[in-house]
Amino acid sequence: MKNFDLIIIGAGPGGYVAAIRGAQLGMKTALVEKQKLGGCCLNWGCIPSRRLMESAKLFDRIRHSASFGIEGIDAQALRFNWKKAGSEKDRIVVKLVKGVEFLMKKNGVEVIHGTASLDGPSNARVGDDVLIGKNVIIATGSRPDRSFASSLPKGIVAEIDEFYARTELPDKIVIRGGNVVACEIANMLLLIGTSVSLVTAGNRLMPQLDEACSSFVREKFKKLGIQVHFEKEITGVRNGGVLVGDEFVPCDLVLNCSDRTAILPELKDLRLDSHNGFIKTDEFMQTSVPHVYAIGDVTGTMFAHVASAQGSTATNHMAGIRDPLDCNKLPLNIYLDPEIAAVGLTEEQIKARSIEYVKGEFPMSVNSKALVEGQTEGFVKVLADKKYGEILGVHIVSTRATELIAEAVRSLTLEETLDDLTKAVHAHPTISETLMEAGFKALGKPLHI
Amino acid sequence: MKNFDLIIIGAGPGGYVAAIRGAQLGMKTALVEKQKLGGCCLNWGCIPSRRLMESAKLFDRIRHSASFGIEGIDAQALRFNWKKAGSEKDRIVVKLVKGVEFLMKKNGVEVIHGTASLDGPSNARVGDDVLIGKNVIIATGSRPDRSFASSLPKGIVAEIDEFYARTELPDKIVIRGGNVVACEIANMLLLIGTSVSLVTAGNRLMPQLDEACSSFVREKFKKLGIQVHFEKEITGVRNGGVLVGDEFVPCDLVLNCSDRTAILPELKDLRLDSHNGFIKTDEFMQTSVPHVYAIGDVTGTMFAHVASAQGSTATNHMAGIRDPLDCNKLPLNIYLDPEIAAVGLTEEQIKARSIEYVKGEFPMSVNSKALVEGQTEGFVKVLADKKYGEILGVHIVSTRATELIAEAVRSLTLEETLDDLTKAVHAHPTISETLMEAGFKALGKPLHI
Repeated sequence: MKNFDLIIIGAGPGGYVAAIRGAQLGMKTALVEKQKLGGCCLNWGCIPSRRLMESAKLFDRIRHSASFGIEGIDAQALRFNWKKAGSEKDRIVVKLVKGVEFLMKKNGVEVIHGTASLDGPSNARVGDDVLIGKNVIIATGSRPDRSFASSLPKGIVAEIDEFYARTELPDKIVIRGGNVVACEIANMLLLIGTSVSLVTAGNRLMPQLDEACSSFVREKFKKLGIQVHFEKEITGVRNGGVLVGDEFVPCDLVLNCSDRTAILPELKDLRLDSHNGFIKTDEFMQTSVPHVYAIGDVTGTMFAHVASAQGSTATNHMAGIRDPLDCNKLPLNIYLDPEIAAVGLTEEQIKARSIEYVKGEFPMSVNSKALVEGQTEGFVKVLADKKYGEILGVHIVSTRATELIAEAVRSLTLEETLDDLTKAVHAHPTISETLMEAGFKALGKPLHI
Repeated sequence: MKNFDLIIIGAGPGGYVAAIRGAQLGMKTALVEKQKLGGCCLNWGCIPSRRLMESAKLFDRIRHSASFGIEGIDAQALRFNWKKAGSEKDRIVVKLVKGVEFLMKKNGVEVIHGTASLDGPSNARVGDDVLIGKNVIIATGSRPDRSFASSLPKGIVAEIDEFYARTELPDKIVIRGGNVVACEIANMLLLIGTSVSLVTAGNRLMPQLDEACSSFVREKFKKLGIQVHFEKEITGVRNGGVLVGDEFVPCDLVLNCSDRTAILPELKDLRLDSHNGFIKTDEFMQTSVPHVYAIGDVTGTMFAHVASAQGSTATNHMAGIRDPLDCNKLPLNIYLDPEIAAVGLTEEQIKARSIEYVKGEFPMSVNSKALVEGQTEGFVKVLADKKYGEILGVHIVSTRATELIAEAVRSLTLEETLDDLTKAVHAHPTISETLMEAGFKALGKPLHI
């Protein structure tokens, strides 16, 4: 039996950040992990997929490099080596996992490998070991719903982790899902020459996005030749393809990108309130049981940066620091080509709340830095309260959108107005000028448009 | 004789933005330009050089693309076609100049081609035409000091505009200057295979930078084989090279990147106070003569975005809106590889003012997105007041630094503290997380370090 101030179950970006923060607050901290430090994000999610996307984008950029004065590239000889790209991706993952190991040591966090169950609000069990903790954080993450694969013959369906482990790419793939992950992988594969179809039960892609962003992707995919089957399911397999409703869609593989469900630890003598299968918490990430907290995917918020922030909120609360997280001001990043990023309310949400608003849109095609980079697709849309000009939502489709959103997050967290946004001098030439330009447009005094 | 509410001399990013703002405020506006709309920035400065740098970076990235799984590139065949890159650069410039033309028409600004002189505070003369204006803005820009060329035999020295117009690149070049433009061109040429030496009268590169950034570039240039001759001048020409002090430096061409001096319009019956050869203004950009304003390079601030902001400040002031520009919160962007960007005070300035401060540094090499992109050079340095944590300066050396600085500008304009910076959730994985990480470090609670 071992005593801790804090026991954390799950070492993803929620759990390991909470461990560092707990240790820094003086808590004796244990971090239990059944697989790998860094969790899904680092090992099978964000990091691997970002690297593959980066590789795919570079491949595509090379194919279009003539307009930059670059010569001597034989388009016929150019080839994307999936296996090599994968091993380089693995090298980065290994480096980052080692980094997390180092951070745990440096901060004096005890890492325990194994699967934890909770025998009570302060008792965890890992194998034969019993851990007693003043506080517990459940950061066990989520997993894809793998039940779909069993509905089709063995071998035709791959889950994402299996897909990334493959050394060969299929020529034709059907991706099942219309969520962010499905769209990201579809875009990445298309850039490296795979023929892609998408099958989704929904009637739009990435429905959490502002409609303008979602439509942009729909149109872009159409233009690129990604066939999207809306409100459909894969119902069977035929020779050389699958049935989507009544339609035959040729493919070599189906990639299952279904929505994710919570991974709950085994609980004994403990009942935690839940909501749609995810653990319910208050604004301090405390569950219905005092001293038991939950953070990250297991609470239904599927972003690494949110999990990390929740980890800090939880450990702060244990230490008596009340520092709730404002869930309306969290960035949403999507790594397509071009990227998409958003913070705050969508235009539909603003309308649904009957808020009087103004909007400013600015196309990338007239931004000088976008022209310089040859990356002129997309737009910025800024939404603000009509009376005071308070910025309510920012939606960006552009190269580097995922970096630009940092500024917009600041606008929302500091309750900035359009005046604040436009009076801040934006360096020239930068893509970030488009935020200011959209702000000027919303104020009725457009500059470069 | 023609009457206007506002006469602007010079159609660079200061002048043409002031023209749009003046027109939007209801002023009948004339914009006089002796060369091209868009001025130096658009035609011979920022835009052309950014495009050539973008081309050079892509060329270099292609040479190192194997680690992204990209195959079939023959390093021997790969070639940078300077002429082609230049014509694509020209295409973009033409497009943007047409854009400015369109904006002038749309906003009802009268564009007058010719060289203006000022016969008095409200009288301008362009050829035989006399323009009478209630207010005048001098936005005539700056030019390099071309006197150096005459000290050497004809043909060996090129100015920047002449250099960009060349269809062939020299094998070996000596760049005269240690300023931002000299360093940017040196870095760009090196990436595409030119052998570069730098000769500067100063004892450090880009002395306005925080010493850490300046040193970074010095070390990087050394590593790359750019020989920098500090506190030296080019004193003569020998066969196949030049003399730098007593040393012979082989080269085919000398590129003169000397510091710039103001272009002053011819003034009659009008005397404007000046400072080091630049026109002196108050915080509303008004010169020593009421109703005569000056903005941009002619006032000694050499950045396009500052000129544009000054244009708004000036036109607002004419309309009775007092909206001074805070010169301590303006971004400084430098397009090297990696990029450099800064806002606020340098560490030396803070020390010189005896401010008690804390600092946080974070290296790009442990940022996951930088690893994913294969761009791990550089760091972020955040400087803050010790007592209240108010952020005083942010200095970034990294890929995309010129975009990241937008967030830091916001931190300074809103007088944010380190707590504000670190509590804003930064999306993962992004390079922008490094700002937050540096903030955590400064607070004494480092996360990924």
